[in-house]
Amino acid sequence: GLMIDSVLLLEGAMSIEKLQRYREQMRTELDKVVDFWQKYSHDTQYGGFFTCIGKDGKIYDQLKYVWLQGRQVWMYCRLYRTMERFNKPEILEAAKSGGAFLRRFARIPNSGSPWKCAFCLTRDGKALKVQRTIFSECFYVMAMDELARVTGDKDMQVEAAQMMDQLVHWVRVDPSGLGKPQLSGDTPVCSMAVPMMLLCLVQQLTEARSGEEVDKYREVGGWCVKQILQHLQMTVLPLYCLPVVSFLSGFLISFIYTFAIGHALEAGWFLLQYGLENGDQELQRTAVDKFMEIPFLTGWDKEHGGLLYFLDVDGYCPTQLEWSMKLWWPHCEALIAYLMAYSHTKEPALLERFSQVYDYTFSHFSDAENGEWFGYLTQQGKVTLDFKGGPFKGFFHVPRCLYMCEKILDSILNKQET
Amino acid sequence: GLMIDSVLLLEGAMSIEKLQRYREQMRTELDKVVDFWQKYSHDTQYGGFFTCIGKDGKIYDQLKYVWLQGRQVWMYCRLYRTMERFNKPEILEAAKSGGAFLRRFARIPNSGSPWKCAFCLTRDGKALKVQRTIFSECFYVMAMDELARVTGDKDMQVEAAQMMDQLVHWVRVDPSGLGKPQLSGDTPVCSMAVPMMLLCLVQQLTEARSGEEVDKYREVGGWCVKQILQHLQMTVLPLYCLPVVSFLSGFLISFIYTFAIGHALEAGWFLLQYGLENGDQELQRTAVDKFMEIPFLTGWDKEHGGLLYFLDVDGYCPTQLEWSMKLWWPHCEALIAYLMAYSHTKEPALLERFSQVYDYTFSHFSDAENGEWFGYLTQQGKVTLDFKGGPFKGFFHVPRCLYMCEKILDSILNKQET
Repeated sequence: GLMIDSVLLLEGAMSIEKLQRYREQMRTELDKVVDFWQKYSHDTQYGGFFTCIGKDGKIYDQLKYVWLQGRQVWMYCRLYRTMERFNKPEILEAAKSGGAFLRRFARIPNSGSPWKCAFCLTRDGKALKVQRTIFSECFYVMAMDELARVTGDKDMQVEAAQMMDQLVHWVRVDPSGLGKPQLSGDTPVCSMAVPMMLLCLVQQLTEARSGEEVDKYREVGGWCVKQILQHLQMTVLPLYCLPVVSFLSGFLISFIYTFAIGHALEAGWFLLQYGLENGDQELQRTAVDKFMEIPFLTGWDKEHGGLLYFLDVDGYCPTQLEWSMKLWWPHCEALIAYLMAYSHTKEPALLERFSQVYDYTFSHFSDAENGEWFGYLTQQGKVTLDFKGGPFKGFFHVPRCLYMCEKILDSILNKQET
Repeated sequence: GLMIDSVLLLEGAMSIEKLQRYREQMRTELDKVVDFWQKYSHDTQYGGFFTCIGKDGKIYDQLKYVWLQGRQVWMYCRLYRTMERFNKPEILEAAKSGGAFLRRFARIPNSGSPWKCAFCLTRDGKALKVQRTIFSECFYVMAMDELARVTGDKDMQVEAAQMMDQLVHWVRVDPSGLGKPQLSGDTPVCSMAVPMMLLCLVQQLTEARSGEEVDKYREVGGWCVKQILQHLQMTVLPLYCLPVVSFLSGFLISFIYTFAIGHALEAGWFLLQYGLENGDQELQRTAVDKFMEIPFLTGWDKEHGGLLYFLDVDGYCPTQLEWSMKLWWPHCEALIAYLMAYSHTKEPALLERFSQVYDYTFSHFSDAENGEWFGYLTQQGKVTLDFKGGPFKGFFHVPRCLYMCEKILDSILNKQET
């Protein structure tokens, strides 16, 4: 359109070159990351994926974390389905193997619900730990739905839909199937992570589909957006004199409102996407102003660079021991958020944000020597946990970020080239 | 005895003066710490104790953590009962108020067991969170038994004994009352923290008592010691070519053996005490050599000083984000362990260990300005969480350490003065 063309004219050729360099970097890095996980994470004996992988690719623990199994299946399928250079049989085979492992072992037969999933399995699929939350099940839905899309297997799609019904029931009707006792002090406010995750699933399950099922999910999506926005209204951050997105820590519903910068940013691009799909301009603006700009103003470490992990909305010290560390995933979410926001608003300030996060991220997390990214730095930016995969770091945030940034840069640059 | 006298002669007056200085410092610091919690933590409106207390005494959260309620009751009673200068009505009153709050609110009526306790309560006693472990219940036992000792209230002693029976049943017979589903991958090895805690309770419940109940607890104590020693045999640390005490992380029973330096040291002085009470010289030697010396050789940070929080026995990077941080409580346990070991062996090397930990601890954790200790430092020794009390830091490790060190120093110096 005219608007886009004029902005591009203003910014000139320099800017285009910069965007091309970013795209090239994203593409190269994504190839390296996919290589790393293909090389080291596949368990050819028992199926599924190792996720505890040391800095140079060595498996230091054989446990299989269900979140990460589901996420890796999803990511492989998404790459296979939507990026030509990954439309290769070995990617599909790996995804199918992971999916088969999940279907066979993730659900706990004796939990009282046919849909409760374990958090962690032994190498051969025995359940070791189960959480009283919805997240293993969420990643199960993502894996099954995306796998159904690439294989055409309707059973898997049905399984994803049934699990989704169970999730909505747990969250909106009756949580007792999660195994938590009802407590007298339970509050009606739920952690922002819950509606965020459900909104992500709504987008997964409705993509390019229509009909009754989709209408049902749309209603859930609307509910999720309302829930997320409640967190915005609940609190104002006195320290910064700014409203702030508070994320009630999964650890404990408390009178402390802990603000996870990464979750705010991730919610930001979920909301922006949802606002774009539904033509809701007010929501688009809220997503950018409140869920992207404020997290940056409050969460960027002016002394050492990078995004802090947690802040307390009242300016107290967070009780999370890792609050001041620099983690890879909030930086991944920030890159997606600012680039997506820039591509739709063309506000140069948002590209500036992206550049600043990009410089920190690629100079601190990316490992040129052995591939993949380090996940955990001290506040000062030194690697302090040196593994590439762990209980919460698998084949997900890094490749999703690189994949989405490459796609967004493609769309910006293609518009301009035509 | 002759042995003790000759060692003291060898070490000379310098050493005695040094021990007197340590005692003076422990005494002064204990007074300041007791003052801090008396001044800031008492909830005169609802009873019980605030534990989320900022660096200068300000309450930043009103939640009441059951571990910390029980520990504070225990500590007040112990001080009241065994140290003359704390035998004051206000200490007893505070302990009784905390005990009443615990008895009224800690147990969860609808959990399926009359003895399951919450982990966290609202200010007015509503349950907010319950863990599927035994620790809230353990601190409940400690509080009730010690409170029964100072008040003479037999009901409380019976309650402590009943809760203890339930704990032993959960640990040795059937854990299903804890609310964890039985999982196919469950391993027979239990976290070292469990027998450690039970051994601590055995020592609490048998102190200066005799009879059938005591015989029953002695059998439990023997079982606990065997369980703890299993962790010693299970593994050898290749990186250091030393056997090592592995502590299976409470977080997850895994193929990773994570070694918590603080737990090894705490187990060390529990075992030494048990070995002394039972005249078991081999156990005394094991406690010192394996549970005190090895943790020091592996866990002392040669570059920055202080004790690391976690190590992996196979030399991998631990997956706990806080592994390289310096926490107050392992330093507290180290001070007790080395001083207790020194007082019984009179080996100068153990006094050296004590001195080294003492210097780091008092120069890094103790806060001369506002009283009490900081709890959480970076690896480099900088305060990174600046509160004095939090979800896991209450009136316990610091005063227990100061109290025990003062007592041990009294006993060493009294022997020498007579």
